[in-house]
Amino acid sequence: VEVTMTADRRRRSDCAAACTLDVLGDKWSLLIVRDLMFAERLRYADLLSAAEGISTNTLADRLRRLEEAGVVQRCRYNEHPPRDEYRLTDRGRALGPVVDAIAEWGLEHLPDTVRLGG
Amino acid sequence: VEVTMTADRRRRSDCAAACTLDVLGDKWSLLIVRDLMFAERLRYADLLSAAEGISTNTLADRLRRLEEAGVVQRCRYNEHPPRDEYRLTDRGRALGPVVDAIAEWGLEHLPDTVRLGG
Repeated sequence: VEVTMTADRRRRSDCAAACTLDVLGDKWSLLIVRDLMFAERLRYADLLSAAEGISTNTLADRLRRLEEAGVVQRCRYNEHPPRDEYRLTDRGRALGPVVDAIAEWGLEHLPDTVRLGG
Repeated sequence: VEVTMTADRRRRSDCAAACTLDVLGDKWSLLIVRDLMFAERLRYADLLSAAEGISTNTLADRLRRLEEAGVVQRCRYNEHPPRDEYRLTDRGRALGPVVDAIAEWGLEHLPDTVRLGG
């Protein structure tokens, strides 16, 4: 019997920061959100080509998680062959201040880092 | 020959957000920072007892990474047996807005989550 791990079943505490980090999972999820923040919509190949070099397995896994969490929306733009594009939902777009706060800290405390996007 | 992976050698892009996420590594690092944000200093056992149930191996690994990144400072408060306590550096304390932004998003978008600390 396989247990479906929903965000709620996996919850270990009610701390809003901990629960958010459970949704986002790891750094790759936030980098996907960053990429989608600067583009209206992106295709799988666009996301795969990000500077940090995410692997195809990791990208597929994180996109699925973000979609389940209602952060990312998948839209099929071609049926044969099947091709999807991804965009942020409103709730995903609301992660803007998180990405900004992380980038601000890096700009101030890590040498030779730059702000991406606009 | 073992290669030392410093933050700089591991760097895959100059994006400030990506580099910050490389320093923080994963959700556990940010939860350790959260716990230290609400306490002047914490001992290993205090950090181990956080609600989310970090494992002792993960805690030791993340504390070492955060110390190397200059985010956390380790102070020995007992020599026999050796016992350390941990506090944030100025640069660690500057992560406050990151933890806040993550908690804000959770409070607004995840049901039944609460703000920890003051």
